[in-house]
Amino acid sequence: MSKTRVGILNVTGYAGVELARLLAAHPDVELTSVTGRSTAGQPLGQVFPHLSALGLTVAAEIGEVDLVFSALPHRESAEQILPLLERGLKVIDVSADFRLKDSALYEEWYGFRHPAPELLPKAIYGLPELNRESIKTTNLTANPGCYPTASILALAPALKAGLIDGNIIIDAKSGVSGAGRSLSLKSHYCEANEDISAYALTAHRHQPEIFQELTALDAKVQAVAFTPHLIPMKRGILATCYAPLKTAVSDTEIRGIYHQFYEQEQFVEVTPAPPHTRDVSGTNMCLIHPVIDRRSGLLIVLSAIDNLIKGAAGQAIQNMNLMLGLPEEAALPKLAQYP
Amino acid sequence: MSKTRVGILNVTGYAGVELARLLAAHPDVELTSVTGRSTAGQPLGQVFPHLSALGLTVAAEIGEVDLVFSALPHRESAEQILPLLERGLKVIDVSADFRLKDSALYEEWYGFRHPAPELLPKAIYGLPELNRESIKTTNLTANPGCYPTASILALAPALKAGLIDGNIIIDAKSGVSGAGRSLSLKSHYCEANEDISAYALTAHRHQPEIFQELTALDAKVQAVAFTPHLIPMKRGILATCYAPLKTAVSDTEIRGIYHQFYEQEQFVEVTPAPPHTRDVSGTNMCLIHPVIDRRSGLLIVLSAIDNLIKGAAGQAIQNMNLMLGLPEEAALPKLAQYP
Amino acid sequence: MSKTRVGILNVTGYAGVELARLLAAHPDVELTSVTGRSTAGQPLGQVFPHLSALGLTVAAEIGEVDLVFSALPHRESAEQILPLLERGLKVIDVSADFRLKDSALYEEWYGFRHPAPELLPKAIYGLPELNRESIKTTNLTANPGCYPTASILALAPALKAGLIDGNIIIDAKSGVSGAGRSLSLKSHYCEANEDISAYALTAHRHQPEIFQELTALDAKVQAVAFTPHLIPMKRGILATCYAPLKTAVSDTEIRGIYHQFYEQEQFVEVTPAPPHTRDVSGTNMCLIHPVIDRRSGLLIVLSAIDNLIKGAAGQAIQNMNLMLGLPEEAALPKLAQYP
Amino acid sequence: MSKTRVGILNVTGYAGVELARLLAAHPDVELTSVTGRSTAGQPLGQVFPHLSALGLTVAAEIGEVDLVFSALPHRESAEQILPLLERGLKVIDVSADFRLKDSALYEEWYGFRHPAPELLPKAIYGLPELNRESIKTTNLTANPGCYPTASILALAPALKAGLIDGNIIIDAKSGVSGAGRSLSLKSHYCEANEDISAYALTAHRHQPEIFQELTALDAKVQAVAFTPHLIPMKRGILATCYAPLKTAVSDTEIRGIYHQFYEQEQFVEVTPAPPHTRDVSGTNMCLIHPVIDRRSGLLIVLSAIDNLIKGAAGQAIQNMNLMLGLPEEAALPKLAQYP
Repeated sequence: MSKTRVGILNVTGYAGVELARLLAAHPDVELTSVTGRSTAGQPLGQVFPHLSALGLTVAAEIGEVDLVFSALPHRESAEQILPLLERGLKVIDVSADFRLKDSALYEEWYGFRHPAPELLPKAIYGLPELNRESIKTTNLTANPGCYPTASILALAPALKAGLIDGNIIIDAKSGVSGAGRSLSLKSHYCEANEDISAYALTAHRHQPEIFQELTALDAKVQAVAFTPHLIPMKRGILATCYAPLKTAVSDTEIRGIYHQFYEQEQFVEVTPAPPHTRDVSGTNMCLIHPVIDRRSGLLIVLSAIDNLIKGAAGQAIQNMNLMLGLPEEAALPKLAQYP
Repeated sequence: MSKTRVGILNVTGYAGVELARLLAAHPDVELTSVTGRSTAGQPLGQVFPHLSALGLTVAAEIGEVDLVFSALPHRESAEQILPLLERGLKVIDVSADFRLKDSALYEEWYGFRHPAPELLPKAIYGLPELNRESIKTTNLTANPGCYPTASILALAPALKAGLIDGNIIIDAKSGVSGAGRSLSLKSHYCEANEDISAYALTAHRHQPEIFQELTALDAKVQAVAFTPHLIPMKRGILATCYAPLKTAVSDTEIRGIYHQFYEQEQFVEVTPAPPHTRDVSGTNMCLIHPVIDRRSGLLIVLSAIDNLIKGAAGQAIQNMNLMLGLPEEAALPKLAQYP
Repeated sequence: MSKTRVGILNVTGYAGVELARLLAAHPDVELTSVTGRSTAGQPLGQVFPHLSALGLTVAAEIGEVDLVFSALPHRESAEQILPLLERGLKVIDVSADFRLKDSALYEEWYGFRHPAPELLPKAIYGLPELNRESIKTTNLTANPGCYPTASILALAPALKAGLIDGNIIIDAKSGVSGAGRSLSLKSHYCEANEDISAYALTAHRHQPEIFQELTALDAKVQAVAFTPHLIPMKRGILATCYAPLKTAVSDTEIRGIYHQFYEQEQFVEVTPAPPHTRDVSGTNMCLIHPVIDRRSGLLIVLSAIDNLIKGAAGQAIQNMNLMLGLPEEAALPKLAQYP
Repeated sequence: MSKTRVGILNVTGYAGVELARLLAAHPDVELTSVTGRSTAGQPLGQVFPHLSALGLTVAAEIGEVDLVFSALPHRESAEQILPLLERGLKVIDVSADFRLKDSALYEEWYGFRHPAPELLPKAIYGLPELNRESIKTTNLTANPGCYPTASILALAPALKAGLIDGNIIIDAKSGVSGAGRSLSLKSHYCEANEDISAYALTAHRHQPEIFQELTALDAKVQAVAFTPHLIPMKRGILATCYAPLKTAVSDTEIRGIYHQFYEQEQFVEVTPAPPHTRDVSGTNMCLIHPVIDRRSGLLIVLSAIDNLIKGAAGQAIQNMNLMLGLPEEAALPKLAQYP
């Protein structure tokens, strides 16, 4: 059987390059076309020596493929995706352009009018653990943000069980690759190493995305306070979530609820101890640990992912596998590169 | 004028060694005696090459001094401090032994009966910004923990102003030096680097210390949920605190309250942007940034310190300066070693 | 076709655990038995959460297998390997016990009499690029050290071509995982981070191993000065080699010689620019860059590997593939996990 | 006595900012004027929060001062220094513009004609350990490069003693701050962390500077092969130097020669073990360890400095102290910030 041909718009960011690496190990899919903006015309191996074995050249336009991943920045992504959808291609958008359902909200947070607001309600939010069946039949998947992936998976079982009432706090910590490959002082080695800080305080663009998805799980969520932090490591996100409970729940009960919720999932594991991001490095796994703080009565949930895999490229491939009817786990590592 | 002689019990941990380094620059105090457990008899410069210029030898017993810092582990610290107090020495205990006022609480959290419960109410909690006058006249200062220092300074202005009502959440992040110099897998380079995790979930010994001091500021604090995290860097603590407000307060108002509270303090600065731990590295400063999350109505306060200085050795010297009637800022750096 | 069963002696070090991870992706081999010293009886996933999916339990003794990897420390390795060889098993020794051909040299460097000196000349030095045919037929492969792998591959083409005359200098830099998982101050996070130093100056055990193999390539090598350095990163070795040339050679000529020497090799690549260890991270690749310094006339060769893969577990699997008649590249990644 | 006023041209790089921090602790000198290129007009504390206590504003032009440090890039530095020298100011140039004596060599390596070639022979190469007396009386000091400082101090005693004959190899490793504060992919966190590579192979601009100074010590030096490497840490340089000996020398003899050479120096220490860069972090110290490799007969010398202090700002202040007749050690830390 011939392989399905796929392409990547803007392979040169960290999500794009990780897509290329992971797809190279896929038994049923072949990466045949990649585009880049400033590097068009160059062999991929010249831009990324570690990918020279793929033998690809960065093109200005995507070639003949059946499915396209867009790793473009938002806005540009929507603009390039539209004609591809019209040509009948399946599209997985790794940018933020099709995540929010409400075009007014999009305009508020991203600062310009969405070029295809009519598509927003049709795009499927690509979190397979929650929306698997819809993903299987869509032509347009909005791949979730890295912070939202960790946060929503951490809170979904409790929200679905109707346990939570009040403000939810998500204190998230991300490695520096989350800030991308574009140069900036915040990602400059000597500024980022041996440092931690919060950023985008009360104003990060993943906040409305998280709020939209949590309220879809339980309309009674009041508000979400989301505080991202930058951590001196390359990969990994840890989300520490705090939520008030309607009524008291024991540690045993909450673990039971979480285990049951995820027992069919191969990429989510409920762990007996607080998870380490090192244990998901290089994998598509999400490790989750819920616990009750007996003094405050709060539910605390910790959630760890590799921001470039389950938080970006890996989840995109998981979505692709569903959209193409392939085994969901194809090409997706489960064992961490440790140490 | 001859210098005051001081000593350090257990110089060989990270707090002890930092005390030795900072004291070497003190104009009015001379470090004349240091003890160690496994290294007694060795020149200090053999254990720590960077301190060979001090010309000290590690002794088994403290020599003739007027004031002693104890950087011993808890329990051992109390046991060695008692005879020194009886000899009339001034003591600053960097361990946890004299921080909790309630001996039953101490026994619950530290697992053994306190050897001098009668001293607990007399020891002064050595946070100069809150207890300056008492520190000036005590013979026994309990130097605060690193997490409590960052957390209490972050919340004191709001609590004193009576703004807070409900559960307080403290999500704290510490560099690895907080785990000490004793070998453990959690501080092993390949386990700690490129990793983040929470630890001691709902059960860290700094929780009762923080709760005790916060309720002393405002008895209406309900509970404190304290979650420490280990970050792949050597020094630094960032505490991200979340507290529900009784009534709505604006960003401008809260900044005004914080600025006023700390305007006389030379080691606390209220910053216009979220603080970075790199900006306090090597200093005795605490940087604080309060903000209101308009969606949840929560007060969020970020607080950054160098865990080994304002969180340990520097604060101990600040306390010593007060106890000896010296300028409070003597030997305490304010400008960060950057980058 | 049923899979070949293999086992790992001492799975709990970094080489052992990486063997387990890589073998899990092998199409023709099944890891069925692992031993550990202090962890015998525990589920592997309890010791290493990231390997819980393997479903293995750490045993005290190796089970029924056809081939065994020994990741034991030297001495213990030889002692446990001998009875296995007698039982007819194929063995790949990742320790240093069978690398030196001369038992007197072994005793000099390792401090005890070798338990099976008669096996030393029979064991094959498992560097496939040099000894492929012998590895295919041996029952006992001595897996090379990490530094020797990078160094010998860097110098082999020039030595085989008879270009070098005089003392060779190898200035090597290794990530901290090379120091193993056993606790030590040198691998303590706060001691190793933000630091570089040389160690084992003129006295590292890999020196005689390198010298033995380089003189086997060209008997006219005078001496090897080998200086290892510890670098604050987890994985990776960079060897910078300096060698005097008999007669002048141009950059073009030396690149031609290196390209030709390795053109059939799938795990060695001669690169047009100085290699980065990040470009081999997670792979079995060795990147090599030779250049002539026109002022001194020296040949300088840079060589980069992942010390835990091409420098340990990956090379061991490459040797296993040869010994079992399987495709040499099976289960061995070529694309780096980047960034 | 009033303090001497000094200024910094281009305070906004890492050398400039470190100069500002160290000068703030100087008892006899006051930093009264700082310039910047893109930040002129801004409070210094806005660009660097950790320096807000200095109360300075970045100016476009240097104010009324007696001595100026130039931390400008080369070329621009020479151009801005010339009029200041004419105004009678003392100048310490931290850039490379006045280090090479030969204007043709300068043009070859820096790519443009030197604007004041007549000053090149008059500028003093500011390595106090070698040129102290000349520095005391000059108006123009060329502050040495970071790599040259470590390398020349490592080799000077052996060269002065006439021990060396042949090619010298300097394999140097630097933290990322050596690449400056300007954004570049090589200093991007995710590219630099967990990576090591050599760069500027056989072509680094510090090579001619080192060669010039080594041949000034002993004209019989044949050639210098200099290989710089980038290490994932913020600060620190370790130079590993290899030099052939004319006649055999013992370890004891070589240590004796080095100890004698540096016995009067307060910023150079000959160490009994290989030095760590962590032991010089934050200090103006240079630690040196010479050893003989008995197999090759080579002299190996290790040398560790903090590249921003002894390799830049600290050495500049040491030079200033000499030029102003102040105690040489004023404002220069000797005890490392550890850990």
